[in-house]
Order: sequence, then structure tokens, then C-alpha cells
Amino acid sequence: MAFKVTPYEVSGNVDYQKLIKEFGLKPLDSKTIEKLTKFTKETHFMLRRKIFIAHRDFNWILEEYKKGNKFFLYTGRGPSGNTHLGHLLPWIFTKWLYDKFKVDFWFQITDDEKFLFNPKLSLEDTNHFAHENALDIIALGFKPDRTKIVIDTECADIMYPLAIQVAKKVTFSVVKSVFGLQNDSNIGSIFYTSMQAVPAFMPSVLKGKVMPCLIPHGIDQDPHFRVTRDILPKLGYPKPASIQNVFFPSLTKSNKMSASMPETAVFTTDDPKTVKKKIGSALTGGRETLAEQKEKGGQPDICSVFKYYFFLFEMDDKKLEEQRQLCKKGKLMCGDCKAELINRINTFLESHQKKREEARKVLDEYLFKR
Amino acid sequence: MAFKVTPYEVSGNVDYQKLIKEFGLKPLDSKTIEKLTKFTKETHFMLRRKIFIAHRDFNWILEEYKKGNKFFLYTGRGPSGNTHLGHLLPWIFTKWLYDKFKVDFWFQITDDEKFLFNPKLSLEDTNHFAHENALDIIALGFKPDRTKIVIDTECADIMYPLAIQVAKKVTFSVVKSVFGLQNDSNIGSIFYTSMQAVPAFMPSVLKGKVMPCLIPHGIDQDPHFRVTRDILPKLGYPKPASIQNVFFPSLTKSNKMSASMPETAVFTTDDPKTVKKKIGSALTGGRETLAEQKEKGGQPDICSVFKYYFFLFEMDDKKLEEQRQLCKKGKLMCGDCKAELINRINTFLESHQKKREEARKVLDEYLFKR
Repeated sequence: MAFKVTPYEVSGNVDYQKLIKEFGLKPLDSKTIEKLTKFTKETHFMLRRKIFIAHRDFNWILEEYKKGNKFFLYTGRGPSGNTHLGHLLPWIFTKWLYDKFKVDFWFQITDDEKFLFNPKLSLEDTNHFAHENALDIIALGFKPDRTKIVIDTECADIMYPLAIQVAKKVTFSVVKSVFGLQNDSNIGSIFYTSMQAVPAFMPSVLKGKVMPCLIPHGIDQDPHFRVTRDILPKLGYPKPASIQNVFFPSLTKSNKMSASMPETAVFTTDDPKTVKKKIGSALTGGRETLAEQKEKGGQPDICSVFKYYFFLFEMDDKKLEEQRQLCKKGKLMCGDCKAELINRINTFLESHQKKREEARKVLDEYLFKR
Repeated sequence: MAFKVTPYEVSGNVDYQKLIKEFGLKPLDSKTIEKLTKFTKETHFMLRRKIFIAHRDFNWILEEYKKGNKFFLYTGRGPSGNTHLGHLLPWIFTKWLYDKFKVDFWFQITDDEKFLFNPKLSLEDTNHFAHENALDIIALGFKPDRTKIVIDTECADIMYPLAIQVAKKVTFSVVKSVFGLQNDSNIGSIFYTSMQAVPAFMPSVLKGKVMPCLIPHGIDQDPHFRVTRDILPKLGYPKPASIQNVFFPSLTKSNKMSASMPETAVFTTDDPKTVKKKIGSALTGGRETLAEQKEKGGQPDICSVFKYYFFLFEMDDKKLEEQRQLCKKGKLMCGDCKAELINRINTFLESHQKKREEARKVLDEYLFKR
């Protein structure tokens, strides 16, 4: 089955192995994970489960760190709406690296991008969501002394002069082939990738010292960083390293959660009733009747509810495997499995939403200003 | 003879009447000049001599002014090098309007543009020239309370969020056809026209009140403002009006002075010796020998030295006409004519350069910052 993955379109049934090859990524092998574990002393479940599956130059980051050359972390968010659980994947993993390595973290919120690429969104809309989404990153526990949130339109004083230095070295042909932009694309969208390149070297510019950059991100963003990697050495900065996660599954049949289709995802702002409704009507691997399920067993591998446990809500590998087996043997019914997930999600969201509201008061400490 | 005029290429022998038609400009007719004179009480020599030859919606600007709806003036400079006398044409005319109408003046210096369009210039180069060029505009006598100088990379905090609102409504096809940009053009140059559009509505944004905008400019810049005029009404702002001047002649055979060919132009920073040398070797309408010139007379209409008098250094129409006749009758020799011009240019530059240096001390008062 054909599939397509760009920062602006994900369609079809994504074959990640094929995508890794196509993008020119390195699969994240056990040797690299072992190297990482020497520093972290434990392996994050997202690594064990191959939620993070690929990388570029991750070994180099570790080698530099060993030499005393600290990297900084960079990831981001396109604020087209509220944050959903899928967005949290790279952020949670980033938070783990942030704690283990004690490095700085730069978080870019691309209100310009979402305005330029979405005909329906005004700059007021995307800037509003920028501030809302920022609360989610703070709620995850990042500290203000090592965290800077960069909202593109609010940091243009520093970013635009850096972005044009990238832009001068990127032609329309490149963005045409990399992002599928066309002659009828708007000239802001054509320029945009230059802005996404900036946080990969802005901390070096500001510190007056070249520092390695590591970008954990959803695999669909790789095209941007491919361009960034091509250009940065020409400006005297190293190629940023990166580590890619697969998509958080949709609650419906589509491949990826989508902020534009609320029924496919749980948002960090959803109330308990909404969560109950969404999970309640989620696609499962259950059978037509209870009797049939008891007889044949469920199919966890095609079940979006099971995937929720897999991706975020059951971090214990042993317990997850038990759950899988119970399901397959027809001993765990979808209703119970859903009820437990609803419970776990709502417990997480209750705490997260409290932290989100507290974050409003301290947002200013995180927002980067010259 | 074929010619081409875009903001990025002027070649061939420019036929202004043809160009006006091609660009869709209105010739600046005596009726419009009369209307203007009702307000100014005098006619500027650049109008009488058709140095300003065309406009867009200039009558609308006057009508609005009459109703009490003051316009603001906007012009600019691409800082690819030092300022030459040709650059002063629209600025001197703008200064006249500024004095007569007592309106605000916004001066844009596009250090981003010149960096993006010139492979040889760094951003440090163009930003350096931005500050140097700013001194020239201040030296012309604009006052800080009604003048704001906008250096693009230094005002990106305000300009970028406005520029992307323009950019969202301009496609690559448009900049391809208007500026001749191609697939191998860099994505910064493709985006750039959005930045040049900004000062045409930024003062309205900042004041929270929609104001008419009048742009005096060299005719080669019209393509930018054609794009600006297409987009601004879609953002809720009126189309800016404009008034176009022809090119200041080159000292050699080419049509236009060029900062990249120092021998074609006198720069505001040239010392008396350099001026003497440049004017001394300028192309004239003189004959092969002194005897021949006395017999046949000179040809002022193809003489770059005469054009210097015409454009800037003899504002008295009667005296200029006398000079033309003396030349044609073989009674004025090139050597004398050049000596007098050198004298006038150096007198002007001596005073201008003094004011330029004084301007360094007050530059900050003029530079726009949020």
C-alpha cells in the first residue's frame, strides 16, 4: 500500500522501515541504545518499544558529550490547535534526556508555519494556540533555568536575521522536491523551513560557542531537518543530530492522530466525559460478539486501545505483555480494557491540567526574549 | 532597442513611455501637478522637468489630504554600497513633500534584500551599509520627530509577523512573473517582497488607524509595489499611492548609475579629487576637437555632464536653458562645463558630508524600535 509522509501530509499505511530508507535515516539499533544506557543507566520504554526507531548522528552526540562537549535539546510544536497525546511522545522522551544529561532545552512553537500552511487559521489563532501549547510543555516538568520556549513571531528579532542566512542557501527547487511545494504555494510557506532551521544553531550564536544539537521529533518532521543539516555546515555549525519517533496511533482507522480531526485523538484539554466518549467509541481489535471474543480472543496488534497502553499508559513491559496475552486468549474484554484506559488517561489529565493552569503564572519565565 | 527594468535588472535603453504603459502607471500630467501645486504653492523642478514622470493614485492622496486624512511618506534604500547621487533623487523630492505637507516619513533600509540578492555581500556588509546610508537620509534634513528609519533585520520583531500576512497571499508564480525569479532562486529572495510591502501599512498597524501611504520611488521598484497594491486591500488597508522618478544618468554609457560600478556614479562619500576624476572622464556630448565643437556646437541632450545639471545641479530652468543654448552654439566648452560641475558637486558634498558626520551622533533617534 502506498503511503506518503511529509511535514504537511501523512497518508496511507506508513511502512516505517521503508520510510527510514527513503529518508536516509539510521535505524536505532541495540548498539546505539547500549551506548546511551551507559550515560542514562536505564533504557526508556520508548526505546525498548521502538517508539523511537531511527536517528541521525546520535552516536556523535554521545561521543561529544563524553568529551565534555554538551549538546542542547531542541524540539517543537506547530500550534494548529490544542495539544493531543501524540504530541507528548517526543516531549516526554526529551524530558527524560533533559533529566539524564542535564542539558539545555529549546522548544520552538511555529505559529508562523501553521498560519502560512493552513488557509483557515489566522495569525491570532496560531499565536493563541502557541501560548496554550506552551503550557503543556511546562506542565511536563521542564525547569525555567534550562528551558527556553521560542514562539517564532515573538522571537523574529533574533530569528529572522538568522533564518535569511539559511534561506540564502536554499533554492525553490529544494523545497519543491523536499516538501512538495508548488508554483501556487505561498511565498511564506516557501521561506518557512529557514525558520525551523534556526533553533538548531541559535543557541550557539547566542552563546558565541558552537554546540552540538540533538532534535527528538516525530518522523514526519525529518524533511525540515534534512534541509537544516545540508545548510548548517555552510554557516559554520555542525549538522544537528536527531532521533525520530513513530506516530501515535489514531483512535480511528487513520495512521496518525490529527488535531484537525478531534475524534481521532485525546487532547490534553479534554474533560473526563470527552475522554470516556472518545475511548468508548475507539477502534479495537475486539470481535463482533462477546461470545466470539471469549472463543477466538482479541487482536491487540490492531487495537487502538491497546496501542494507548503501549505508547503511554503501561510503561511496565511485563504488565503490558500480560495484558496482550490475556486479550489474545479471550480473557480480557474490550469494555474492561477501555474502562481501565479511561481511568488512566483521566488520572493523567487531571494532574496534567492542574500543572497546565499553574504554568500560566510562570509562562513568562520560559518565553525566550532577547 | 530592447530594454528590461525590474528591481533586480535594468538593461538596454529605457523607453520610459513604453515602460509606463507596460507597468500600468499613469503619466504624471499637468492636471495632477496643478492639483498638487494648490497645496504646495510651488512646483518642484523635478516635476517641471519630468524627472518624476508617473504615478499611481496620486490624486487620491491629495483628495484624502484635503478631507483631513493625512498620508504618510514611505521610501527606501537597498544598502548594497555607499549612497550615490542617483539615490538622492526620490529622497530630495520626498523631503520637499515632507516639508510642504508636514507629514510623517518612513524610510526602509533593506539589508535583508541586498544580502539575499547579492551573492558577494554578507549580512554584516549590508547591515554596515544600512547604517551608512541612514546618515545620508538624515543629512538631507529630515527631523527625528516625523521620521522613522526602519532597518529590516533590526525591526524584524514587528515586520516579520506583518510580512507573513502579505506572504500568505502571494504565490511563487507571482514573484516568478513579476521579478523573474526562478526555481534556482533562493527562498529568502522569493519571500523578500513581503518585507518591502510592510512599511506601506505598518504605520497604520502601529497607530491602530488606517492611513493613506504615498511612496516616491525610482521606477524600477514599481514591481514590488504592484504586488503590495494587490495584497493590502485583502488585509484591510488601502493600496499605497506612488510617484515614480526616472533613473539618474550614468557617467558612462549605461542607462543607470550603479553602486556596483563606481566609475558610473558620484557617491556621497567621494572626496573632491575623486569627483574631479570621475567628472573629468565623464561621457559628454562634446566634439572630437575644440575647433569642431566651436563650429558645430555640443550635444547637451546626450551629455552626462549636462544631465547632472539637469537632474540636480542647476535648479533654475532659465539658467539651465541658457546653458543648453550656449553649448549647442559652441560657446560653452566641455572643460569649463565640467570644471563648474565639479565645483558645484564638491560644494554640495562638502556640506553633505559634514551633515552626514553630525548625523552619526543622532542616528539612534531616527532608528525605529518597538
